Amino acid sequence: MRCGVLYSGGKDSTLAALVLEPFYEVTLVTATFGIADVVAPGRRAAEAVGLGFETIDLDPTIAEAAVERMVTDGYPRTGIQRVHEHAVETIADAGFPAIADGTRRDDRVPTIDRSVAQSVEDRFGVDYLAPLSGFGRDAIDALVEQHLRVETGPSEAIPKADYETELRALMREEHGAETVADVFPEHTQSRVVGRR
Amino acid sequence: MRCGVLYSGGKDSTLAALVLEPFYEVTLVTATFGIADVVAPGRRAAEAVGLGFETIDLDPTIAEAAVERMVTDGYPRTGIQRVHEHAVETIADAGFPAIADGTRRDDRVPTIDRSVAQSVEDRFGVDYLAPLSGFGRDAIDALVEQHLRVETGPSEAIPKADYETELRALMREEHGAETVADVFPEHTQSRVVGRR
Repeated sequence: MRCGVLYSGGKDSTLAALVLEPFYEVTLVTATFGIADVVAPGRRAAEAVGLGFETIDLDPTIAEAAVERMVTDGYPRTGIQRVHEHAVETIADAGFPAIADGTRRDDRVPTIDRSVAQSVEDRFGVDYLAPLSGFGRDAIDALVEQHLRVETGPSEAIPKADYETELRALMREEHGAETVADVFPEHTQSRVVGRR
Repeated sequence: MRCGVLYSGGKDSTLAALVLEPFYEVTLVTATFGIADVVAPGRRAAEAVGLGFETIDLDPTIAEAAVERMVTDGYPRTGIQRVHEHAVETIADAGFPAIADGTRRDDRVPTIDRSVAQSVEDRFGVDYLAPLSGFGRDAIDALVEQHLRVETGPSEAIPKADYETELRALMREEHGAETVADVFPEHTQSRVVGRR
């Protein structure tokens, strides 16, 4: 069965794909608002692990609304959650019988709880899979270490194929770099450069 | 890394082991109160899928308490949950650096929520994995169909290597077969007889 995995080029979504690989015909799918070039880093990471790659288009009005929400809130959580659900619904509507993402047990955001998962499955007629949702942070770190080659660095320095990159770019354009720095806590990003 | 998977010989715990197999050195572990012979069906199923097999001993006083609770409640849920947590804690204390079970996203019981999982990890210094917790019922049914050969039948007819079998046996002994029929809703059990 074909499975489209929402793909950021980072370690979580790549590991999610590796868990599914023995059971599904996996395609890595980078979702883009068309605001920043997230397709190139997604394709590069997909090639580095030797899996198929596609892109899907997200609705830019969702990005606008999410950025305004994050600036009003002063933190990104609610906006990110809304964008993630939009991305899941978009890939669910893209023709794959199964879809997946890299959400993890210990993530606070984004999360897809059981009721949201079942709602997506019912509305779009797909299986929604969260292969890392049964793994804690330490287990995931150990599996990444064993199976992937990863480059890490600050968010601004590591080209990622995720909507956070685009939301930051849009926020920078509309509210300035200082607002981005205020709203998004600096954290280390990872980019997959191959398998081990 | 070695991973002990709580093993009933059924389709869920077997599929959980198959998901982990590319990443861990998996041992299937049947937990027993010593009330009924659940070891033989567990070992048979483990041999049928070609994975290592061990047993661990559960505390019979937990089974006694669970049976009394289930009879008082008139339904098995709370007793089963207590026994499952005891089984998870017992395998967590058995020397495996990682442990796992076959709990699924759509199960009402047993469940190990994030706080319980993190508590087990902290207290016993293990990784707790629930590889099927990100998969819905339809996805699991499809994966089982593709990867396992399974025999199904009513609970009383299919020899399983799970604590429900032992709790039923203890309840029958102490409260009679009619009480067992009242407390445990009849449902179809599965037993794995090989891989596809």
